[in-house]
Amino acid sequence: MERIVSLSSLDFYLLKAPQRQKVIIADSNTSELCLSVLIYNMESLIDAQIIEIEAGEESKNLETYCSIVEALIEQGADKDTVLIALGGGVVCDVASFVASTFKRGIEVCLIPTTTLAMVDAAIGGKNGLNIGTVKNQIGNIKFASKVCIDEVFLETLEARHIVNGVAEMLKTALIADRQLAYEIMQMPPLEAGTNIQLLKRCIRIKQSIVRKDPNDKAERRLLNFGHTIGHAIESLAMQEGRDLLHGEAIANGMYHILNLCEQMPQEEKDILRTYLSTHFTIEPIADKMQDLFNYMNADKKNSNQCFNLVLLESIGKGVYNCSTDREQILSCMK
Amino acid sequence: MERIVSLSSLDFYLLKAPQRQKVIIADSNTSELCLSVLIYNMESLIDAQIIEIEAGEESKNLETYCSIVEALIEQGADKDTVLIALGGGVVCDVASFVASTFKRGIEVCLIPTTTLAMVDAAIGGKNGLNIGTVKNQIGNIKFASKVCIDEVFLETLEARHIVNGVAEMLKTALIADRQLAYEIMQMPPLEAGTNIQLLKRCIRIKQSIVRKDPNDKAERRLLNFGHTIGHAIESLAMQEGRDLLHGEAIANGMYHILNLCEQMPQEEKDILRTYLSTHFTIEPIADKMQDLFNYMNADKKNSNQCFNLVLLESIGKGVYNCSTDREQILSCMK
Repeated sequence: MERIVSLSSLDFYLLKAPQRQKVIIADSNTSELCLSVLIYNMESLIDAQIIEIEAGEESKNLETYCSIVEALIEQGADKDTVLIALGGGVVCDVASFVASTFKRGIEVCLIPTTTLAMVDAAIGGKNGLNIGTVKNQIGNIKFASKVCIDEVFLETLEARHIVNGVAEMLKTALIADRQLAYEIMQMPPLEAGTNIQLLKRCIRIKQSIVRKDPNDKAERRLLNFGHTIGHAIESLAMQEGRDLLHGEAIANGMYHILNLCEQMPQEEKDILRTYLSTHFTIEPIADKMQDLFNYMNADKKNSNQCFNLVLLESIGKGVYNCSTDREQILSCMK
Repeated sequence: MERIVSLSSLDFYLLKAPQRQKVIIADSNTSELCLSVLIYNMESLIDAQIIEIEAGEESKNLETYCSIVEALIEQGADKDTVLIALGGGVVCDVASFVASTFKRGIEVCLIPTTTLAMVDAAIGGKNGLNIGTVKNQIGNIKFASKVCIDEVFLETLEARHIVNGVAEMLKTALIADRQLAYEIMQMPPLEAGTNIQLLKRCIRIKQSIVRKDPNDKAERRLLNFGHTIGHAIESLAMQEGRDLLHGEAIANGMYHILNLCEQMPQEEKDILRTYLSTHFTIEPIADKMQDLFNYMNADKKNSNQCFNLVLLESIGKGVYNCSTDREQILSCMK
């Protein structure tokens, strides 16, 4: 499991091994907005080499992977090299996949610079690259040695991206911590999404779930709450060229899946729907279900194209492996 | 750790899960020479899908990897799909890397069809792809669930490829089993390299070393005996466009590294040199040392460009982490 550290303790850690090569992977945004802050704060990175990739989901592919591997070889990287990822989910995912495969595995430290990456991509080791428009088709599970959570990087983040991250924070709370879920919903999202204490509580929840089930065979599936429909909405938006962020898609996924949460008290559903529709644009999906089904990952272990959904029993209590067929989903989405 | 099984027990295993999709990865040679034998012997694979790659080391790259991933997506492969690799080291390596990364990891069974792959590539989980002419720059450690060792596939193997595999068999014996080393050397290579009992003894040695040190931090390095110089000879041959097989390069690597094995009795060195020069073409390397150093992996953990060599104390006893500098190596190669 990754250790959550501050910038100064990451610096201390890296200074202890001055002979190791450090390579920072940043994107065109973070190299402009965050790199100088990072190097100003970290003596250990003064001589680090830098590999820059284009910002955006379009970079999360094998082409970018290959260009980083070639740059590492050119820079003489070896098994002792440490990669430092500085960026959002795309940078963290790509760097983690590179680290898991370069010379059969090198160390990676992640410095997530967005709310979303801090609570999600940087935690739990999962990485992924897209193949064409299909998300996360390749990847593996590689734990970063250290993940540095520091609010200094959130200062440069646009409001939309902060709210985007709050969707994943809320998801984490909804499946496991009632008190935290209410705290998040009672706070303005721009405040919740930059509150380092709330962020760290979400991280601890994710880590404790991952620790119980690192290989995603049981409890870890809880973290997919809102994702079965949410990912399909995200892929469809990508296909249609619409601008929709991951957290925004997950907010939609959570909103719509509430229709299937039969055990959840109506009052709690209302609270959640009100919160989600106040802070996110919720799109109706009844007309798009056929397209969405094409993107939804049918769990082939069940017959008849059943889906293994995560549902809520109440705010703070998720249930995984809820087998649901197309018809049930369709009838609830009308 | 992978389990060593027969064709019939692999068949039995796969027949127990008829709903799972099976995809065979073969190369242009094995699809011609081995595929019909395989399907004739395995009822479970009658409906298997087949992905064919070009035979040869040139296929061990990201382009081949990418084409397999795309074919799998097209064929609707999911997390439950089983990959079956049918081929030599290249097919085993590529299939294992695909399996370790497709949808964050799917099951792979290996059916090595060469002596070399049976005792080496298919055992111990290491896989690798080349970047340009630099070997195994990316990869990871992914254990196959089953490795099927069956002499039926050796019947189609050319003599040169059998002898090629004997080099790795001998290497395994030399570092760990004196008795086995003498047995191999006292037998004609074409016999040793197709003797399933000898093959299985080599496999058990490799597995027991890997079990003690799966991540290659200590004992597993023993398996690199003959490889530091051998890999460099192999890469140089590739660069010069000369036809040299992996085992042939390792035979050369073992021959030359004997110069550095100071503790080894002279008589044993003579026996080994005689065996190697009788069955392999040994090239003089004194004139090529500068080129070879360029390819040898300097272990950056030591200062002054030291190499961490594996040496023999005697036939059957290897020693790893023997720190040796360029000058020492040069003076012994004159």
